Amino acid sequence: MTDTSPLTLLGLGAMGSALASAWLTAGHDLTVWNRTPGRTAPHAARGAVVATDVADAVAANGLVVACLLDDRSVRATLDGVDLTGKDLVNLTTSSPGEARALAEWATARGARFLDGGIMAVPPMIGTPGAYVFYSGSAEAFDAHRDTLAVPAATNYVGEDPGFAALHDVALLSAMTGMFAGVTHAFALVRKENIPPRDLAGLLSGYLTAMTGYAHGIAEHLATGDYTAGVTSNLAMMTQGNATLLRTAEEQGVSPELLTPFMRLMRQRLDDGHGDEGTTGVVDLLLR
Amino acid sequence: MTDTSPLTLLGLGAMGSALASAWLTAGHDLTVWNRTPGRTAPHAARGAVVATDVADAVAANGLVVACLLDDRSVRATLDGVDLTGKDLVNLTTSSPGEARALAEWATARGARFLDGGIMAVPPMIGTPGAYVFYSGSAEAFDAHRDTLAVPAATNYVGEDPGFAALHDVALLSAMTGMFAGVTHAFALVRKENIPPRDLAGLLSGYLTAMTGYAHGIAEHLATGDYTAGVTSNLAMMTQGNATLLRTAEEQGVSPELLTPFMRLMRQRLDDGHGDEGTTGVVDLLLR
Ligand SMILES: NC(=O)c1ccc[n+]([C@@H]2O[C@H](COP(=O)([O-])OP(=O)(O)OC[C@H]3O[C@@H](n4cnc5c(N)ncnc54)[C@H](OP(=O)(O)O)[C@@H]3O)[C@@H](O)[C@H]2O)c1
Ligand SMILES: NC(=O)c1ccc[n+]([C@@H]2O[C@H](COP(=O)([O-])OP(=O)(O)OC[C@H]3O[C@@H](n4cnc5c(N)ncnc54)[C@H](OP(=O)(O)O)[C@@H]3O)[C@@H](O)[C@H]2O)c1
Repeated sequence: MTDTSPLTLLGLGAMGSALASAWLTAGHDLTVWNRTPGRTAPHAARGAVVATDVADAVAANGLVVACLLDDRSVRATLDGVDLTGKDLVNLTTSSPGEARALAEWATARGARFLDGGIMAVPPMIGTPGAYVFYSGSAEAFDAHRDTLAVPAATNYVGEDPGFAALHDVALLSAMTGMFAGVTHAFALVRKENIPPRDLAGLLSGYLTAMTGYAHGIAEHLATGDYTAGVTSNLAMMTQGNATLLRTAEEQGVSPELLTPFMRLMRQRLDDGHGDEGTTGVVDLLLR
Repeated sequence: MTDTSPLTLLGLGAMGSALASAWLTAGHDLTVWNRTPGRTAPHAARGAVVATDVADAVAANGLVVACLLDDRSVRATLDGVDLTGKDLVNLTTSSPGEARALAEWATARGARFLDGGIMAVPPMIGTPGAYVFYSGSAEAFDAHRDTLAVPAATNYVGEDPGFAALHDVALLSAMTGMFAGVTHAFALVRKENIPPRDLAGLLSGYLTAMTGYAHGIAEHLATGDYTAGVTSNLAMMTQGNATLLRTAEEQGVSPELLTPFMRLMRQRLDDGHGDEGTTGVVDLLLR
């Protein structure tokens, strides 16, 4: 038998609405609340119970999911609301520190707390590929794992309530770097007779093949040996960087998206680590 | 019947040696030359003809492949050598401008010219996955495509002799950005009890899923409509960037690898393009 446990959802923005739809489609008994009441109508039409007062919404069910704009809006919304005995799951994007502080705040008010980091955009909710990192109370996660798995696959990453946000931000940060590199690549060919769609196919194939880089860095960090399995060392990569910069110059493209990483590679090389790959740059970033 | 046409290879460094091995394994009649003669011995033992003089090496075959350190070493090596009627294939890493200039230089000396950009490290040569971009003389490419396909798959990208290098550098530049992002991600968790190998698995999966970004940018650039299909617009991404920066601050990680791209996103947003994705940053990079 499928789980159709009741739950409350606070927030019906783009993401909250997608979550609500997924739970309603799966037959869950859903209570919804939104600051601006107009947004509840389409969900009411599909069977959701509408609470006009946030305290009523929270009182309605043991599991309360929040998907609001930011940490501040969660605090503002729940301030003064009785959380005793509740399981509060915060799917609002937060920093690890904000999630840790909210966990303390909620726990002090008698709730069990889980933070979540959604690795999807709203149209992906309810489709394979979407997933959410969870961290915090293992008991709360175990109690609700089936319900939480309805809108997106779950990945519980530990008791530290900051870990979901930390995993979320780590992946988004890596993605930001990849996006910057891809942006530079398109700029290089912008004035040439090279169809952007052709370059896109080459880029996605090549970048996919190169994601193994992460495994190499992980081995180095796990073992402390930053030279193991290095096929292109810093000395060689620094020469390659010179070609990349010369090409950017020839093509009239600002190198600003690439130079910070190249500068740190050069610093590590100058520090006498020419036989390593780039792993040492991880340590140079730490204050 | 497989093609075993004779050819000459100039340069037996790490990459040249891998190429020589591949051609010898495939049964090609190979003449080799290297500035430092000692490096020819293992190839001679496998049947390669050793030329001690570069002019003899070039005279030996119609197809001459160079894989030397850089553009300057190719010029130095071939200066004064008769290239009349030769097909010169330069697999030395060059910028597009260097490749174009070398093409003019070689063509003026009576040769047909092809430039190549090798998308592999030496251990990958002779394995699937390795490939080489070629551009320049289509006739030379057609005449030798089977021979050239022995060490690595071929991808001919046009008559412009600079295009192989341009494709090569575009992919390596995108990869550099991805590496920078991954490096930042590992720095974020460096002091936490999160196994780097676990993060690596998550990163490679997520980055692979996100390579579709390149296709989105290509559609925008091809059509001129920078808003089509945008699920996270600049206004939303800028908010997300704030969380990324706050997290870096909390974790004691310098944001320097991410801030240049974020700054350009902000600039484009301030220019009134909040409904677009990041495609406009391509244009901001162009001088
Ligand atoms: N959209 C995505 O692609 C995506 C992806 C991953 C994670 N997320 C995260 O999901 C969360 C929600 O995002 P979204 O896309 O749904 O945003 P959104 O469409 O802008 O909706 C924001 C929601 O927060 C509510 N809200 C804002 N300020 C409030 C306050 N002070 N008090 C009470 N409610 C307040 C809004 O209520 P009103 O209707 O009254 O304005 C609305 O329900 C964010 O933390 C976001 O980072 C979104
Ligand atoms: N290795 C890679 O991962 C890789 C990947 C893609 C592309 N490539 C490109 O392949 C080319 C060769 O790389 P490699 O890894 O084989 O480098 P390498 O191991 O350093 O070998 C350099 C080669 O160039 C020769 N050389 C250097 N300066 C010379 C000069 N002034 N005149 C004549 N010969 C000279 C060297 O001869 P001596 O033996 O006399 O020093 C040697 O044969 C480079 O352009 C590189 O960018 C390499």
